[in-house]
Amino acid sequence: MSSATVPAGERAAAAATAGSSGGLPKPSPLYAAAGLDVWTMMNQAAASVGAVNLGQGYMSFPPKDFITRAAQEALAENSHNQYAPPRGRPGLLEQVGARFSRLLGRDIDPGSELSVHAGANEALLSAFTAFLEHGKGEEVILIEPAFDQYTPNVIMAGGRPVYVPLRVRTTKDPAREVVSSSDWKLDPAELEAAVSSKTRILVLNTPHNPVGKVFTREELEEIGAVAQRHNLLVIADEVYEHLTYGIEHVSIATLPGMWERTITVGSAGKLFGVTGWRVGWAVGPASLIAPTLSAHTRIVFTTNTPLQEGIASALCLAHDNDFFNVQRSEYERRRNRLMAALDDAGLPYVVPDGAYYLLANAASIKIPKDYEFPSYIEARGYNFKLAYFFIKEFGVSGIPPTEFYSDAHKALAVDYIRFAFCKTDEVLEEAARRLQKLKTHLQCSD
Amino acid sequence: MSSATVPAGERAAAAATAGSSGGLPKPSPLYAAAGLDVWTMMNQAAASVGAVNLGQGYMSFPPKDFITRAAQEALAENSHNQYAPPRGRPGLLEQVGARFSRLLGRDIDPGSELSVHAGANEALLSAFTAFLEHGKGEEVILIEPAFDQYTPNVIMAGGRPVYVPLRVRTTKDPAREVVSSSDWKLDPAELEAAVSSKTRILVLNTPHNPVGKVFTREELEEIGAVAQRHNLLVIADEVYEHLTYGIEHVSIATLPGMWERTITVGSAGKLFGVTGWRVGWAVGPASLIAPTLSAHTRIVFTTNTPLQEGIASALCLAHDNDFFNVQRSEYERRRNRLMAALDDAGLPYVVPDGAYYLLANAASIKIPKDYEFPSYIEARGYNFKLAYFFIKEFGVSGIPPTEFYSDAHKALAVDYIRFAFCKTDEVLEEAARRLQKLKTHLQCSD
Ligand SMILES: Cc1ncc(COP(=O)(O)O)c(C=O)c1O
Ligand SMILES: Cc1ncc(COP(=O)(O)O)c(C=O)c1O
Repeated sequence: MSSATVPAGERAAAAATAGSSGGLPKPSPLYAAAGLDVWTMMNQAAASVGAVNLGQGYMSFPPKDFITRAAQEALAENSHNQYAPPRGRPGLLEQVGARFSRLLGRDIDPGSELSVHAGANEALLSAFTAFLEHGKGEEVILIEPAFDQYTPNVIMAGGRPVYVPLRVRTTKDPAREVVSSSDWKLDPAELEAAVSSKTRILVLNTPHNPVGKVFTREELEEIGAVAQRHNLLVIADEVYEHLTYGIEHVSIATLPGMWERTITVGSAGKLFGVTGWRVGWAVGPASLIAPTLSAHTRIVFTTNTPLQEGIASALCLAHDNDFFNVQRSEYERRRNRLMAALDDAGLPYVVPDGAYYLLANAASIKIPKDYEFPSYIEARGYNFKLAYFFIKEFGVSGIPPTEFYSDAHKALAVDYIRFAFCKTDEVLEEAARRLQKLKTHLQCSD
Repeated sequence: MSSATVPAGERAAAAATAGSSGGLPKPSPLYAAAGLDVWTMMNQAAASVGAVNLGQGYMSFPPKDFITRAAQEALAENSHNQYAPPRGRPGLLEQVGARFSRLLGRDIDPGSELSVHAGANEALLSAFTAFLEHGKGEEVILIEPAFDQYTPNVIMAGGRPVYVPLRVRTTKDPAREVVSSSDWKLDPAELEAAVSSKTRILVLNTPHNPVGKVFTREELEEIGAVAQRHNLLVIADEVYEHLTYGIEHVSIATLPGMWERTITVGSAGKLFGVTGWRVGWAVGPASLIAPTLSAHTRIVFTTNTPLQEGIASALCLAHDNDFFNVQRSEYERRRNRLMAALDDAGLPYVVPDGAYYLLANAASIKIPKDYEFPSYIEARGYNFKLAYFFIKEFGVSGIPPTEFYSDAHKALAVDYIRFAFCKTDEVLEEAARRLQKLKTHLQCSD
């Protein structure tokens, strides 16, 4: 396919692999492939044809003024430009502590039960690093679909991921009908069967990316019971705790017996719509946070100071101006707009109760047999082709959710495509307009 | 010693260790101790008695206005608040590429030969991670004194550090006379003897922290020859390349045959006096940068966007306003002020030719036999006691350089204390005033 040129990044990667032969230092096999990550790949493909980008989960609308102003003011203070203590700036620790004291219903000690990180990503890596040892075959249970950084981060820290998928349990046909994200269930027996004497950690993401599922208290109790029976550390990835739609977010750390074994991870980037600020945090008992902080200190030493200070002020101001409620209703409106567009286009989906992603079911899309794909897409299987087809044919980009699955369970996701709705009304309207083209496609291929 | 209470952080760490028993998840032994890092320990000790802080290498003066303004302006742009590409923002890559094209005398391709990191620290960790495998016993040569993050970062990536110390080669007595940082020599035979069939990487830091040594072209040629003979990757930590005093900084990557095997690491925090911004970079051939970028993508995913954009603008503006020359002369003045203070106080030292640290030789200081130390200092040996003694008795804090040495070579540094001179004139004047007390001490103990 002559028109599908390999993106520049891919060429560089190919050159890199070729270059590492012939008496020169060779990379570790884990990092040698240097393929494009799915985000960059889909961003580049989308940009190359001017597709409406509902791929990566960053906001296409500006952060509220009070947030950026808080960071601008921080920059004007000399001490806010120098190294922060590894645990975090005192002002931010205090604000995050106060927020978690409310959310978790317990007094959080900012000096021992919290650590600030370079994004939730680095908080997760720090926790894995602190609690896993290399060469011991220690296992980490990941619930699929699983955010794509979990697997490489577990492996980097020396662990072996073991996967348990969510399964769609409904009498409806998800290829033809809209289903609820609460229909995606974790089978407690399947979870327990995945535990071995080597299992150390269970990662739980709620509200869930990409399903939009918000785990109920009953579901969390079942999961918590497994963790307690087998003495597992629970890493609760709750970066979307502030975004649920008509349903209550429950932190697993609030259940009886769970605080002691749970590290809860949050993200200032998600909380305030500033994904590029790279500020996140971990909260838990001192026994779990001290080693996490110790790993953090070696991984990045400390998190950037001015944006920590900006987030500290923003947290303080957010309560005065009812920011989180307003934000929640704005996201709910965006979600509803995207759902209406898909209803209109005739494409079924999974209704998200939280976060800002939606899984559309594209089983009814027929890709012509002779349709040509660039080799870097071809190599990644049907789901990547589907995402590519959406970009080329409908001018709307999403993310192929098989990227969130191990090989054994990829089949569960091949028909889905993930759209992010953290986008402006204009972007969502344009996506709705373009998705109309689906109607013709679905009729023609029927 | 009743007045020496354990800092709050230490108490938390002790509680943490105690808490991790009894059927709860246990951390990896590597991160279980959760002791204070040397910076936090000395910062806390200094703050507790109001000592003049010449410890940690952060600036006590504000960054120039044009730098913070550049970041403030970046924050006003919506797209500058969202995820950057893992490799870095295009504008920053272009500016850093241009700077390195001049420094290294070759055309740097920003799209394949550069990556932006969360500080030089995370660039180093990414390079170690990309080029080392766990469980293979691969070795990394570190030249001592070695920046304190190298050892834990090498171990985290699966490597085994092997240490080769700089040795003082002069007819002078460094305990009584001022010597030059160029008197601290690496013995090429000792270096070569440390290489084994397992050696993969050699880390070279020039200008050097804490010695202030700027390696000469001849010295670099000898080191480069060893790297080429044994096919080693050289990681050149050149975060202080912009700060040399009357002597030329040479990048080892510019020597014949070295570009192909060298990753050069830099730090925006050091370059612009904003250590808290956490922006750094790595430059090298695509074959070395691609795996480094791949590791980086998993470690932090991407570096904070607004401060990347701020640095991009600052780099652009710096050339117009002769920033780097002015800055260099300001640091040289600070260095000279500190040297004059020590001359005056009668304490010999190592004259730094680069960076912003100075090693004072305190062999002549007599600590009374019955002097009491808090247990967390006592546990760390004589050099920590010396630094603590300076804080308590002279009201000036430095860093004990044994922290930069393996156990086998700590003896080489026990009499030294590292002072940072990236401080305001007021701070340096006050330090000078307080160091006068040394005169009395030295007389009394003679
Ligand atoms: C489930 C989940 N966890 C963690 C992260 C990473 O958050 P951060 O940007 O704060 O590193 C994301 C980002 O998309 C996410 O979706
Ligand atoms: C020699 C050396 N390398 C690396 C670093 C880390 O630099 P950054 O703050 O950009 O992570 C430092 C900081 O003091 C240093 O002295």
